[in-house]
Amino acid sequence: MSSATDAFVQSNQPRFLDELKNFLRIPSISTLPEHAADVQRAAQFVADGLKAAGLENSAIIPTKRHPLVYADWLHAPGKPTVLCYGHYDVQPADPLELWTSPPFEPSVRDGNIYARGSADDKGQMYMHLKAVETLRAVNGTLPVNLKFLIEGEEEVGGGSIANYVAEHAPKLKADVALVSDTALYAPGIPTLCIGLRGLVYMEVEATGPSRDLHSGLYGGAAPNAVFGLIELLAKAKNSRGEIKIPGVYDDVEPPAPAEKESWAHLPFKERDFLRNEVGSTKLVGETQYSVLERIWARPTFEVHGIAGGFTGVGSKTVIPAKATAKVSIRLVPRQDPDKIVVAFRQFVKKHAPRGIKLDVRVLTASPGLVVNPDHPAIQVAARAFSDILQKSTVFIRSGGSIPIVGDFATHLGIPTILMGFGLPDDGLHSPNEKYSLDNYYKGIMTIAHFFEEYGSKALS
Amino acid sequence: MSSATDAFVQSNQPRFLDELKNFLRIPSISTLPEHAADVQRAAQFVADGLKAAGLENSAIIPTKRHPLVYADWLHAPGKPTVLCYGHYDVQPADPLELWTSPPFEPSVRDGNIYARGSADDKGQMYMHLKAVETLRAVNGTLPVNLKFLIEGEEEVGGGSIANYVAEHAPKLKADVALVSDTALYAPGIPTLCIGLRGLVYMEVEATGPSRDLHSGLYGGAAPNAVFGLIELLAKAKNSRGEIKIPGVYDDVEPPAPAEKESWAHLPFKERDFLRNEVGSTKLVGETQYSVLERIWARPTFEVHGIAGGFTGVGSKTVIPAKATAKVSIRLVPRQDPDKIVVAFRQFVKKHAPRGIKLDVRVLTASPGLVVNPDHPAIQVAARAFSDILQKSTVFIRSGGSIPIVGDFATHLGIPTILMGFGLPDDGLHSPNEKYSLDNYYKGIMTIAHFFEEYGSKALS
Repeated sequence: MSSATDAFVQSNQPRFLDELKNFLRIPSISTLPEHAADVQRAAQFVADGLKAAGLENSAIIPTKRHPLVYADWLHAPGKPTVLCYGHYDVQPADPLELWTSPPFEPSVRDGNIYARGSADDKGQMYMHLKAVETLRAVNGTLPVNLKFLIEGEEEVGGGSIANYVAEHAPKLKADVALVSDTALYAPGIPTLCIGLRGLVYMEVEATGPSRDLHSGLYGGAAPNAVFGLIELLAKAKNSRGEIKIPGVYDDVEPPAPAEKESWAHLPFKERDFLRNEVGSTKLVGETQYSVLERIWARPTFEVHGIAGGFTGVGSKTVIPAKATAKVSIRLVPRQDPDKIVVAFRQFVKKHAPRGIKLDVRVLTASPGLVVNPDHPAIQVAARAFSDILQKSTVFIRSGGSIPIVGDFATHLGIPTILMGFGLPDDGLHSPNEKYSLDNYYKGIMTIAHFFEEYGSKALS
Repeated sequence: MSSATDAFVQSNQPRFLDELKNFLRIPSISTLPEHAADVQRAAQFVADGLKAAGLENSAIIPTKRHPLVYADWLHAPGKPTVLCYGHYDVQPADPLELWTSPPFEPSVRDGNIYARGSADDKGQMYMHLKAVETLRAVNGTLPVNLKFLIEGEEEVGGGSIANYVAEHAPKLKADVALVSDTALYAPGIPTLCIGLRGLVYMEVEATGPSRDLHSGLYGGAAPNAVFGLIELLAKAKNSRGEIKIPGVYDDVEPPAPAEKESWAHLPFKERDFLRNEVGSTKLVGETQYSVLERIWARPTFEVHGIAGGFTGVGSKTVIPAKATAKVSIRLVPRQDPDKIVVAFRQFVKKHAPRGIKLDVRVLTASPGLVVNPDHPAIQVAARAFSDILQKSTVFIRSGGSIPIVGDFATHLGIPTILMGFGLPDDGLHSPNEKYSLDNYYKGIMTIAHFFEEYGSKALS
């Protein structure tokens, strides 16, 4: 492996930091219309950065909302092609008063750079560009073919990139995708995420009487939309965390014994997780499974929000006509989102309380995914990671969903390497978001090593 | 009984209507700060009207919010004293676009006067003044002693009048209270309401994790405040409408067989009630009881509103940290509100879901009430009512609560005659509120007859 690239990164640290700061100064908040011009400016920054790194065909691709940025370098015949993904948009920064330094004036303290988007995902996405620049500077060429597809709607769940991937599969064809938008399991532990849960997200609307009624005059005989919704949803999960929607567990595939075994060796402390992360009095759920299994490899039913009736200050005695809840079922690999939607609809139909009309609207339905840890690209990535961090790479899952990984699997038929350099306490979506500068530089080195080794591997 | 008073009302109809119109033109919306001056103007209108009718000591009594209006006439020694109550404030008028004629420009159509407050309660309260004026015009004196206490906070649930009654019991001492703020059971049927349900209204707050959590990263192990609240509330009532809070039914007193029997003869049609009033697909509740018994004489548990987590457009995958619900238990006579609060708190404690902290705040706690239909004042009122409407008076209950009736019972030790002349379709609190002019004039006659007969009765 090239220690020349490591040396290049080492000696260019101040410049790499300055450039990242320029990127972080752009308040590219994708959800706020007043920042549309900033989002556009960030797209231009990325397009320029890709060109400067030596990539070709750099283009800003307009969409219905925020543009995609594309670039490629395809001069390594016989070598594999890596599709690099990231996003240049960021979350809103409020509440501003909780930031120690302003969210869009990057500030370095204790080896971290503090700014909105530093870890999610500008700082991580930018490592890919710097790895390319490093390899070209050191070797005059690149060891693999590269395609970059960077979006500006990740934080708003925009569908533009999914449509683009579906419609431009030949153009985006690659052997593997590389995404740096996750975190190390703990500081210093090289971590590849090889499993994600899927998500069926639905809205349930309950209708009772034709208008809000006076509970004194009608209470005892009129159906109550809020209580009807409560009655229904309470039946979906019992107090032991078991989902009571028939069929939901039918296709659940447990993690392989080796994978489960490896999780047992992670530095996970239930007490710290409860106190420092969850912050409640007790953990809940299916206690016959370990906490990591519960959050990574078991389906869940959650109510994300509920609204109905009078919720202002004081008392108003209405029997509400309407109530709405947002609910989701997280899926593990092999569960079919469409089947789960059908199961939920049947459950709702069967348990509809008397006098209550229920409507179910599906907002998202994506499957869970696992990548085979024996896939050559994953093996190479794990080695590159271990080389730089000087520790064995751990394979974990995440209980969350990264829809683009499913899109790459579905439309391009390729696995995704989730090789992120964030840390669990980076404060994504929160005030004082930070990114470790050590991880930033080591990330650039690791990605450069990965490209090199993956290119040389394929030659042998 | 005097047909002279009837004749006086008859011949003064145009003036009585014009005066009511002037009252209705004042937009005395008590909940909107921008109408504070109008509320004050309405208080002045009432004070002036009481004086003009021949009452003495007319005074506008300031409170923390909107003033009370008091007046009396105490020159009938040896005769009983009637305390007349009403309110001069009104509900907001929005949505304005649904009104056929503007809410504060009274308009007569098809024998009804359309305006906000026409039935609730200006038109009804004003009958009391006109009855006094009529009696004095015809007889030169009054047959009973009278005290008037009119409030301006009824529509905002203000506590001023309750405090005033508690603190001025000697001043307000009377034999019976008279309130015209209810409706006939159906057009043309003289109706006295002799029972009201009580109300324990509470707010329940659930707390799970210390902040909203990402449901992908924590779902399966972290407690969900919204689901915890749903789990709890679903246990409070079963699908047959039975409250499952231990002790709630302990002191429930069923209506007397004769009272139940009389309800069976009311022109109640379940099908019309479902279609025209409730507007849902089915009625619910304890079907072993009649609908009238369910809404008048059975305790109920309702959730009036619930809020928690993400309820905006689209999908956000949070595990909510907090959720709040407004709940109430309606009480029938003999149930003790304080005992019910204790029972609910015990229920909440016992069923608190794992990892969820629950707080209960009591907003209102008032008992149910029944008036003995054999009370002399009630008997006299029933007769006066029958004389004017030429039909037998029916005795009904209301499932709602009128807190002032409880205050009169508690602090003055007197029963209240609920003798209202509204109709079920008057549209209180809705657009196009109306009041039947026939009922307005007959109401004045009925009240005059009641005062006369109650005065003469006491002499015999």
